[in-house]
Amino acid sequence: MANADIGALDANVAQAVAQAADRALEGAFDTEFPLDIWQGGGYTILNMNVNEVLGNAANEILTGRKGQERVHPNTHVNMGQSTNDTIPSATHLAIAPELDRIVDGLDALAAVFAAKAEEFKNIVKVGRTCWQDALPLTLGQEFSGYAALMRRLAGKCRALRPGCFELVMGGSAVGTGLGTSPGYMDAFYRHISEMLGEDVRPAENLFDGFQNADFLVSVSGVVREIATSLSKVAKDLRLMSSGPRSGFMEIQLPACAPGSSIMPGKINPTVPEMVVQIAHQVVGNDVAVTLAYEEGELDLNVWDATFYKCLFENLGLVAEELVIFRRDCAEGITANRGRCAHEIETSIALSTVVAATFGYPAGVEVAHYAEEHGVTVKEAVHALGLMTPEEAEHMIDPALMTNPARMAEAIRAFRNAR
Amino acid sequence: MANADIGALDANVAQAVAQAADRALEGAFDTEFPLDIWQGGGYTILNMNVNEVLGNAANEILTGRKGQERVHPNTHVNMGQSTNDTIPSATHLAIAPELDRIVDGLDALAAVFAAKAEEFKNIVKVGRTCWQDALPLTLGQEFSGYAALMRRLAGKCRALRPGCFELVMGGSAVGTGLGTSPGYMDAFYRHISEMLGEDVRPAENLFDGFQNADFLVSVSGVVREIATSLSKVAKDLRLMSSGPRSGFMEIQLPACAPGSSIMPGKINPTVPEMVVQIAHQVVGNDVAVTLAYEEGELDLNVWDATFYKCLFENLGLVAEELVIFRRDCAEGITANRGRCAHEIETSIALSTVVAATFGYPAGVEVAHYAEEHGVTVKEAVHALGLMTPEEAEHMIDPALMTNPARMAEAIRAFRNAR
Amino acid sequence: MANADIGALDANVAQAVAQAADRALEGAFDTEFPLDIWQGGGYTILNMNVNEVLGNAANEILTGRKGQERVHPNTHVNMGQSTNDTIPSATHLAIAPELDRIVDGLDALAAVFAAKAEEFKNIVKVGRTCWQDALPLTLGQEFSGYAALMRRLAGKCRALRPGCFELVMGGSAVGTGLGTSPGYMDAFYRHISEMLGEDVRPAENLFDGFQNADFLVSVSGVVREIATSLSKVAKDLRLMSSGPRSGFMEIQLPACAPGSSIMPGKINPTVPEMVVQIAHQVVGNDVAVTLAYEEGELDLNVWDATFYKCLFENLGLVAEELVIFRRDCAEGITANRGRCAHEIETSIALSTVVAATFGYPAGVEVAHYAEEHGVTVKEAVHALGLMTPEEAEHMIDPALMTNPARMAEAIRAFRNAR
Amino acid sequence: MANADIGALDANVAQAVAQAADRALEGAFDTEFPLDIWQGGGYTILNMNVNEVLGNAANEILTGRKGQERVHPNTHVNMGQSTNDTIPSATHLAIAPELDRIVDGLDALAAVFAAKAEEFKNIVKVGRTCWQDALPLTLGQEFSGYAALMRRLAGKCRALRPGCFELVMGGSAVGTGLGTSPGYMDAFYRHISEMLGEDVRPAENLFDGFQNADFLVSVSGVVREIATSLSKVAKDLRLMSSGPRSGFMEIQLPACAPGSSIMPGKINPTVPEMVVQIAHQVVGNDVAVTLAYEEGELDLNVWDATFYKCLFENLGLVAEELVIFRRDCAEGITANRGRCAHEIETSIALSTVVAATFGYPAGVEVAHYAEEHGVTVKEAVHALGLMTPEEAEHMIDPALMTNPARMAEAIRAFRNAR
Repeated sequence: MANADIGALDANVAQAVAQAADRALEGAFDTEFPLDIWQGGGYTILNMNVNEVLGNAANEILTGRKGQERVHPNTHVNMGQSTNDTIPSATHLAIAPELDRIVDGLDALAAVFAAKAEEFKNIVKVGRTCWQDALPLTLGQEFSGYAALMRRLAGKCRALRPGCFELVMGGSAVGTGLGTSPGYMDAFYRHISEMLGEDVRPAENLFDGFQNADFLVSVSGVVREIATSLSKVAKDLRLMSSGPRSGFMEIQLPACAPGSSIMPGKINPTVPEMVVQIAHQVVGNDVAVTLAYEEGELDLNVWDATFYKCLFENLGLVAEELVIFRRDCAEGITANRGRCAHEIETSIALSTVVAATFGYPAGVEVAHYAEEHGVTVKEAVHALGLMTPEEAEHMIDPALMTNPARMAEAIRAFRNAR
Repeated sequence: MANADIGALDANVAQAVAQAADRALEGAFDTEFPLDIWQGGGYTILNMNVNEVLGNAANEILTGRKGQERVHPNTHVNMGQSTNDTIPSATHLAIAPELDRIVDGLDALAAVFAAKAEEFKNIVKVGRTCWQDALPLTLGQEFSGYAALMRRLAGKCRALRPGCFELVMGGSAVGTGLGTSPGYMDAFYRHISEMLGEDVRPAENLFDGFQNADFLVSVSGVVREIATSLSKVAKDLRLMSSGPRSGFMEIQLPACAPGSSIMPGKINPTVPEMVVQIAHQVVGNDVAVTLAYEEGELDLNVWDATFYKCLFENLGLVAEELVIFRRDCAEGITANRGRCAHEIETSIALSTVVAATFGYPAGVEVAHYAEEHGVTVKEAVHALGLMTPEEAEHMIDPALMTNPARMAEAIRAFRNAR
Repeated sequence: MANADIGALDANVAQAVAQAADRALEGAFDTEFPLDIWQGGGYTILNMNVNEVLGNAANEILTGRKGQERVHPNTHVNMGQSTNDTIPSATHLAIAPELDRIVDGLDALAAVFAAKAEEFKNIVKVGRTCWQDALPLTLGQEFSGYAALMRRLAGKCRALRPGCFELVMGGSAVGTGLGTSPGYMDAFYRHISEMLGEDVRPAENLFDGFQNADFLVSVSGVVREIATSLSKVAKDLRLMSSGPRSGFMEIQLPACAPGSSIMPGKINPTVPEMVVQIAHQVVGNDVAVTLAYEEGELDLNVWDATFYKCLFENLGLVAEELVIFRRDCAEGITANRGRCAHEIETSIALSTVVAATFGYPAGVEVAHYAEEHGVTVKEAVHALGLMTPEEAEHMIDPALMTNPARMAEAIRAFRNAR
Repeated sequence: MANADIGALDANVAQAVAQAADRALEGAFDTEFPLDIWQGGGYTILNMNVNEVLGNAANEILTGRKGQERVHPNTHVNMGQSTNDTIPSATHLAIAPELDRIVDGLDALAAVFAAKAEEFKNIVKVGRTCWQDALPLTLGQEFSGYAALMRRLAGKCRALRPGCFELVMGGSAVGTGLGTSPGYMDAFYRHISEMLGEDVRPAENLFDGFQNADFLVSVSGVVREIATSLSKVAKDLRLMSSGPRSGFMEIQLPACAPGSSIMPGKINPTVPEMVVQIAHQVVGNDVAVTLAYEEGELDLNVWDATFYKCLFENLGLVAEELVIFRRDCAEGITANRGRCAHEIETSIALSTVVAATFGYPAGVEVAHYAEEHGVTVKEAVHALGLMTPEEAEHMIDPALMTNPARMAEAIRAFRNAR
């Protein structure tokens, strides 16, 4: 259509090619693309496949017969184009809807985690660093962290979106634009912007655009951040739900499938485990994408197959896992309040209040006493004569410890009272 | 059949399950496995899918109806088994035929390269290190290196083969073998060894076998060595065939496809480029496999999906590319004798003979003279009065330089003659 | 100082600790940090090392003796802090100056490439895709692509800078801030912002900030983009300078070192090769950083040692290589005009003009004729009767081909004249 | 010495060079190698540095002065050598002692784990798959798996050792051996074999040896297997020792360092965490090594700096961590018998005995009953009327469940008794 606009292509031919392209998008020629995804030559073969299928179809529209009588695949269908600007441009455009799916998935998951943060906001539990009992926090605080992470990742995706609409079309084979007719670029970008309803524009420097696919590496980098972030959260959920009798048992995940062919009653965290495994694949594919970028050469990065296969596999996996993770796992998480309460009551880390009140050495003394005698911190504080039972009950309060302002106030009041 | 042998399973039931399994292998139930490859739970769902399909089929054989009337998926089909020993064992067994395909492919490619080494043994050309002209060697010598590499890689594959037949069957869920009947393991390994005609045996320590999938990492490591080796050779061939008018142009690759949608007559090295891109994928998948191994936990590595997807994708890609690379590229390589001869005649690196004959400083003087005056080393040697034209003709002989024994003899004779 | 401001810490003690810290920055205690970079425990040991060194020094300032008499490492030096907020915050702050160095290096390199683009703007040469001769472009156009790439990468670095000043200070051990006194956070961020002259602020959600180090992965991702971009350009320069007699020989790099211990006169592209190798390391370290992120757990990512070692090694390598690559390689590049002119005159890709003028099939005919008869495209065009020698001289003009507007005009004029 | 043997080098000169080399090994010239590890040119600069330092020292020995009067760095010190055969050969030889250290470390660690397996052989605990409670096994059985893994890894290292002594010496610059005198190779390999007491021999095909560094990739692959294996075990130990009050708490690790700057009494598993982080680095460096291999070119892989830096960093890290992991962690592990006993008593997975005795559906019924009513499997079995309390006491025995032969016997007896 751009070529017709500028008078380079006969309007009837242009119309026929456009009509053929529409039919192709509807799937009319799906069986006529028999190519493997792994191809050298920068997908020239694929581009020619498209040109020939559309050329045949356009000929048929105009003449009733396939062939090259009125429409030649190179001269007409490929007019003003080259594989070298067409394929990378198509790749860019195809990323946008995948990113949109991912953003939607992240937003939806963030909303679920935010709702859980609210639901669990009063459940105090043991915090853990290095997988060791640490200061208390609420289960809701932990989930608020998950929600914030998902939102930030969605933001990183959104920031990539404009890059999807920066193309090298018009550069033809090496960036010089040889073979394009005057006015072609303007017409092309006007048409495609209208069609997509997006601000599509050429790369600032087309030679750079041909040489370097760093945008794809950036996209791949963000996708790996998402996949590994999901994996981290998934492993947290697995660990917090480990049990049912001898693990952390703080939360319960929805059961999706029998957990064993031999052990009755076993339930596995299958969805979080799927998420972890997808992270393996995504990290691996991201390495592949990086290699393909690093091996770019001279006037064109020709490793389109690596980019296409590995990046779109990753985009698709992440978009899909976001739906499953939310629907079949996150939404159904329930808390084991009793277990959380029990673990925090017995935690040695409560001695941090003693340290904050009496100085670090006193905290250490209490911690050691509690450990040695197998008692709670409250009991140790009393046994060591640091507080009365009433004071201990008031001060060694896990809920208080999740709110530093109220805790500081309590410590001040305690000191003043002495 | 093992369970029937030892009296744990009714012979009729065993027979029906075996018959069902045979039908499954023939593809009778292919539509009854609707599962995605990405599954958590260590493929318990897949194992139960198999148990249930076989159970139903066996019931049908015995009773005319699907169901659990005579054959229960867990109690009977899965007897003495667990997902945790079955899936990893099946994975091991499935690797062997893939390795065999790869070994065949490497052997065949080695044979082609060896034939080319013989064909090109008298074509002296410029050697290159750091992409700079270096000492001469023959094109045949370069291809002999490729052949040797393929043979060595085949050897590395062969060394892995026995590991495919070391299984964890008999360990059931965690390696203790709970649920297996007395005599089960012996019977199982006897049956499977006979069936496959291989020496199948249990892992030395079943707990280790359950915990650690390092064999898969070893396989993955060798597969990446093959893929990256092929990529290196493929890039050599691409570079040596670069041109047709402004590259290295030492060899010509068979043309497989049009090289451009816009530049007439362009031919791309599509097969070598496919090989390079597959290396990207293989290296990426290998990272994924390594991650899945590193994240193994406690009594079972449950990341079967990563192993299965990434390792078998790699095995298949390498097995297939070996065939294509040999058939559509290596076999049809021809040498450009004229170009090789021209480049070596003009090479500055011939000054190494001068260094070997008169000492390094004389070599440097000749090299600099040749470069500064744009002449050949022969001409420089004569111009600097180091040799007569006849001596230079005899001594500055690239072919001689590819054979150190004859070269040393020539230098000795030259010195003696003085 | 923050703690003194809010009355939590005695002003004299605060002053002594601050003075000790200043002396530490001057290197006074460099021998008192004997720790290995590889430490578990989230660098608690390192944080305590700092607390103890400063505590001793502050005691000495106040009392004349080391010890804990007046200043306790935990109670006073570490007041309101925890390893878990201090170490990640310090890591963030330390990235900023490294990014600044890299931005400076990219800007300077971009300027050199832009100058070369101008210097080489009239040198027409063979473009190359798939390492095969393609349409002509100017050497300057290629270098303009390098310049544009460097500028874009600098922009990606600049976009990361604000993230360096988003800290988790104030969250203490798990994000709740237990142990901080009222007003501490405000006072801390006010002080640090003034000190650094930057807008330092707390993470939006501290729990998220403790859990997730995705900012480090983002930084690592951009650094790998830079390192692999540099590697791509370095390999281009190596290949374009390959020779001196049998390579591409389009440009010459400055000689930095003897190229061989045995071949006189050999010069290696040592600086570009260093750049390539650094890319290997950077990609590897980036994988390590990603793993450390993916293995984050619960309320704190404790893999600081991986982050610290691998990310800062990468930042330092890239900052340094940018200087060397510019100074010892890029600035001294010269063009081989004669070689560029020769290669473009003989190029088959000039037949693209024929395709643009007469349609693709005519272009193919000319390309095949030229190849078969070993003649130039100009000669073929004339031999096939498509143009007169004068027309061919005018139309088959490589310089014209690097400017599509003028080329299109020439084709239009040619057609009209017929 | 080889060159002197065959009469190519004056015996006095040879002696002086050898003497200089001995002094270099003693460290006499350590300050005369000012080079950075990141160098292009295949370490030609390094090789020349060695040649020049030795040449100067040898001259001094012979003449009392540095310089090239009697001994020239290229002509004499480098006689018959090239950087291209010397550096890769030196790299190979340097790997052997590193592998030996690693083998020793693995053997020692295996011995400790084997001792722990014996010490813990009667401690029955809950097995875990997917971090969910699974069938019982003994803590000793788990540690026996660790011991078996270490032994197998040591075997993989031993298998690599011969490759360290397969060199390309004698090939000089590109594999042809130009510049070597007759008899040089035999003399060289005889001398070096004697010196090292190893069977040192040339690569089967020197061109292959120059082109391909796949041996380094193989070594790197095994080293990553070791590092990731250690990481897996380290994480097991961390998880089993998580607590002290709200984790798995099955074992206790020796305390190495304060666990927190703010939480009194906290102990972190610092050594296992160091091991995990080293795995990140090793996996990353392994990717770097693989890239350097994949980017090998034509007649020489010139990426020695990547190989050297990344491979030897990995070898050193693994050798050292093996000592620390054994000495500061593994040796001091103690079991929490009470906790293990408690968790296994309450485990739902004991219902597997019911499944094995009465069929899978009965097992499921018991499991569900126990879960719903919060009772033990023993209690559920009795409540559901499947066994008398005495039978349940005898049959639902975790220790019995770790021994399938005795378990099967018990089930048979139970069935017969009915």
